[in-house]
Amino acid sequence: MTHTTESKSEEGSMASCPISNVTFIIAMQTEALPLVNKFALTEDNDSLFPKDVPWVLYTGKYKDLNINIVCPGKDTVLGVDNVGTISAALLTYASIHALKPDLIINAGTAGAFKAKGASIGDVYLASDVAFHDRRIPIPVFDLYGVGLRQACCTPNLVEELNLKVGKLSTGDSLDMCPQDEESIVKNDAVVKDMEGAAVAYVADLLKVPVIFLKAVTDIVDDNKPTAEEFLENLAAVALALDEAATKVVDFINGKRLSEL
Amino acid sequence: MTHTTESKSEEGSMASCPISNVTFIIAMQTEALPLVNKFALTEDNDSLFPKDVPWVLYTGKYKDLNINIVCPGKDTVLGVDNVGTISAALLTYASIHALKPDLIINAGTAGAFKAKGASIGDVYLASDVAFHDRRIPIPVFDLYGVGLRQACCTPNLVEELNLKVGKLSTGDSLDMCPQDEESIVKNDAVVKDMEGAAVAYVADLLKVPVIFLKAVTDIVDDNKPTAEEFLENLAAVALALDEAATKVVDFINGKRLSEL
Repeated sequence: MTHTTESKSEEGSMASCPISNVTFIIAMQTEALPLVNKFALTEDNDSLFPKDVPWVLYTGKYKDLNINIVCPGKDTVLGVDNVGTISAALLTYASIHALKPDLIINAGTAGAFKAKGASIGDVYLASDVAFHDRRIPIPVFDLYGVGLRQACCTPNLVEELNLKVGKLSTGDSLDMCPQDEESIVKNDAVVKDMEGAAVAYVADLLKVPVIFLKAVTDIVDDNKPTAEEFLENLAAVALALDEAATKVVDFINGKRLSEL
Repeated sequence: MTHTTESKSEEGSMASCPISNVTFIIAMQTEALPLVNKFALTEDNDSLFPKDVPWVLYTGKYKDLNINIVCPGKDTVLGVDNVGTISAALLTYASIHALKPDLIINAGTAGAFKAKGASIGDVYLASDVAFHDRRIPIPVFDLYGVGLRQACCTPNLVEELNLKVGKLSTGDSLDMCPQDEESIVKNDAVVKDMEGAAVAYVADLLKVPVIFLKAVTDIVDDNKPTAEEFLENLAAVALALDEAATKVVDFINGKRLSEL
């Protein structure tokens, strides 16, 4: 391992240490639990989060890494997972303050386009992320709405793990109306989720690098209803996600950010 | 003032004291500045917020109240106001922790429907709020997506100030696609904004009462483009909002939550 002369800035010095703290942000507990088991994490009941929030923290050590998996938990009234951008943004914000991660991994299931080469069970690493349901047709506000952000650059990870790479587009609807589709096409996205760009927004604000692992549960451009296909494939695809996430963590272990 | 026998619970005891801390959450600084001047607030440069965030806090004392006005500030790259649900949710979350308000007032401009009786310059108090761009067609998740929440009940305020009352629907787009419109109709909304339901979500999570004051800058169901109408009316309507907000604060001064 060659140490290059790096900037003395805080970022430079952080980049020169091996990654130590990794935080997964995962919207659904069904998606998270295989990973919680794989890394032998335990639920932290004296959570670092405020007492009123339903957020769940699983924590532990795996190889040389401190791994935390955070989930937004269940809606306190309705009992369903707190999916979508608002919960993801809040959880990312609170997790960065409580856990001080060197790297965030936003992992989860997603829809994808077969016209762009995607199949059920594929796991994508997002190259960049943007929103497709924030249309603000005023100059500059339009760009703010799209909110395009780059994922942390990981050429070695991509090569080593042979992951599919593509652009991710985020919106708060599981379905896709024509205006969403138009924006997704403009975003040139292969994968469509409900959290990624919100996690990217907060991570960017607080200057924490983030990568996105998205496993395909449903093909958006076929005739099958998204909700049905999503529920049918959720459990099986969660396992594919789990496998890819483990490989990513094994690859990260002992490496610096600049080596990813 | 008659003291009724109230529950000994924390909520009960809070409700029995006059309101002391009021926090305004206002998305655009153009909307906030007339109020900052009216209440003679000063910008808090040693902000309670983390150093990396662009959020702005104006603070001061007006009559018997500690008044804070928080704005999400400008996008650090693009320079436009951080409008929309994600910034509003993050700011509400951080403000509740930093400022511990007894009451949140989400004030801002909005679109509205003339078919429901709205005109430019009207100021509405929202009775309840919901989202119109979070379509998740899976049972129970659909209700989660809509995220209907009640505003703090304020019958005396409504009567005294003769405010218009109506339902508010929130989404991250300034325009309105057919699916948004369908959801807004289902939400039975008169007023349409880009933050309200997100503020309500966080306030509900952290158990802080919230009211919504929305001044109409554009009529959604006419032929004029929303963006144009919005920009044309923004400054004038911000003054109407300022006037209504001042009356609301004057009414709140010295009262308990249960007297609103």
